[in-house]
Amino acid sequence: MITISRRVAMTVAATATFAFATSSWAADSLPSWKDGATKQSIVQFVEAVTTQGSPDFVPVPERIATFDNDGTLWAEQPIYTQIFFLVDRVKAMAPQHPEWKTQEPFASVLKGDVRGVTAGGEAGVAALLTATHSGMTTDEFSRSVSDWIATAKHPKTGQPFTAMVYQPMLELLDYLRANGFKTYIVSGGGIEFMRPWTEKVYGIPPEQVIGSTGGLKFDMQDGKYVLHKLPNIVLNDDKDGKPVGIQRHIGRRPIAAFGNSDGDLQMLQWTCSGSGRRFCLYVHHTDGAREWAYDRGSHIGALGKGLDEAKLRGWTVVDMKDDWNKVFAFE
Amino acid sequence: MITISRRVAMTVAATATFAFATSSWAADSLPSWKDGATKQSIVQFVEAVTTQGSPDFVPVPERIATFDNDGTLWAEQPIYTQIFFLVDRVKAMAPQHPEWKTQEPFASVLKGDVRGVTAGGEAGVAALLTATHSGMTTDEFSRSVSDWIATAKHPKTGQPFTAMVYQPMLELLDYLRANGFKTYIVSGGGIEFMRPWTEKVYGIPPEQVIGSTGGLKFDMQDGKYVLHKLPNIVLNDDKDGKPVGIQRHIGRRPIAAFGNSDGDLQMLQWTCSGSGRRFCLYVHHTDGAREWAYDRGSHIGALGKGLDEAKLRGWTVVDMKDDWNKVFAFE
Repeated sequence: MITISRRVAMTVAATATFAFATSSWAADSLPSWKDGATKQSIVQFVEAVTTQGSPDFVPVPERIATFDNDGTLWAEQPIYTQIFFLVDRVKAMAPQHPEWKTQEPFASVLKGDVRGVTAGGEAGVAALLTATHSGMTTDEFSRSVSDWIATAKHPKTGQPFTAMVYQPMLELLDYLRANGFKTYIVSGGGIEFMRPWTEKVYGIPPEQVIGSTGGLKFDMQDGKYVLHKLPNIVLNDDKDGKPVGIQRHIGRRPIAAFGNSDGDLQMLQWTCSGSGRRFCLYVHHTDGAREWAYDRGSHIGALGKGLDEAKLRGWTVVDMKDDWNKVFAFE
Repeated sequence: MITISRRVAMTVAATATFAFATSSWAADSLPSWKDGATKQSIVQFVEAVTTQGSPDFVPVPERIATFDNDGTLWAEQPIYTQIFFLVDRVKAMAPQHPEWKTQEPFASVLKGDVRGVTAGGEAGVAALLTATHSGMTTDEFSRSVSDWIATAKHPKTGQPFTAMVYQPMLELLDYLRANGFKTYIVSGGGIEFMRPWTEKVYGIPPEQVIGSTGGLKFDMQDGKYVLHKLPNIVLNDDKDGKPVGIQRHIGRRPIAAFGNSDGDLQMLQWTCSGSGRRFCLYVHHTDGAREWAYDRGSHIGALGKGLDEAKLRGWTVVDMKDDWNKVFAFE
């Protein structure tokens, strides 16, 4: 153990010197990242693609970076934040739906069983999503999200969900944007669930949010034009759906992609198989003390195939415990 | 006639004085727009939403402007440019499809009958689109568009199709962007047909192009990850589909919208029914000499309901003949 620690310490020291030698500003802009191979791989990539005359130089318009959200930019345990929202919506809507008291999966959810949301399988989740995420206008839905996220608290930390974002990733988003990158979210979560708060929390505007997408209907309500949310799905923005969503929305292949689960694998494959210099990174949840420790076989954010492919391809894997000085700003 | 001309001249003179008084730079940046009420309405709107302290001030991130393409940014007569592309693709692919010689609608198209494309109704168009716009990768399709548009010529003017863009609209795009607007295309045309050239021609990057969209499949071909174009349609970006496409891609309501046909009406309704200062504009094709003159009942770009609603709502209507000094840069 002591030998390994010394080796690590020496590597860190050597890396730190290198990082400062190449760009002290870059090192300063990622203070929550420990000096080491992981941070070095990020800085080296950014410097390679942004240095005029570098063989890897990429013009600003093509500097597209895509980020998964759940588990990559903010915590996804014990269950996705959107599920907590869904549960609270079921409770808020229950007085108008007395039949839910005995009708599954609503009955379980009303009894406070968060796991009940997924216990009914895909059909159960679909019924809950239909009830809580469709039938209203986009403006009404957006308001319900904004109102909820302003007050809802994470059950473990008691922090607002928007405080459950990873400080090192916020720094990384800023660092990339300062270097001419356009940063996008590409999440399996609902596009309209994220848009009301991503600009404030991540500096990512609504038009740079890609997510699972439901149907919309242009309509008239109370003499005003509205868009009604429909229950059908037009994009399931997970796995194969991620490169599809990227092409639909962006129309060019990213040069950098960031994920944390096997659901992000196709996005990373698509990104890193393009020509020229590319960067793919997996956030590996290894910190059971400050966050959660999970990978293969996890019921949320399972990471198995992705870890294998990262090793095979030489992608960067963040060891949250060892690579991050800080996980959450509130620590 | 003389009396009217004098009135017009006096109005123009008064307007010009006003425009120069409020912003000489703005007036200079729209040289192909004749001084008059139309140009004035544009400049007044832009100054109202961009002047700090103005009651109509709109922060930069919310300055979203959406433009139809066919008939609004470039010519759409005698038929949509994409149809010429489609016809040339059928001809190019015909050697691999000997059955097309006798099979409609391919047979008519191969005989040079451009109208044959639409003569078979929706089913015929769908068959032609499936044959020419799906079955290949997005990269292959993009290349076929780039190659075609680099050499294809408009049948009436002999100009490249990319020269058939309206000079006043190019100036308007630049003027809006110089004032902090993000400019988007929202077209019934194919999203992947436009993206290869919109950045060069309009300064609009692929991620700001919204159009009719086909399905995609993430796939492996010759050991490489690709996206295959499928024949199904996931967005018909016309009429009701325009506000839907805007919400899917942008997630905020534009504050300005520009169109030329009844297919753009819902986009203008959606834009101009939002709160705060808004701007909606119809390009009215009134110049049979320099371009084409058409509106109600035209087989392409019919404008009837839209004209009526523009009058009712006080939207700006561009009279191409009277309001534009120049239509095309090559004149």
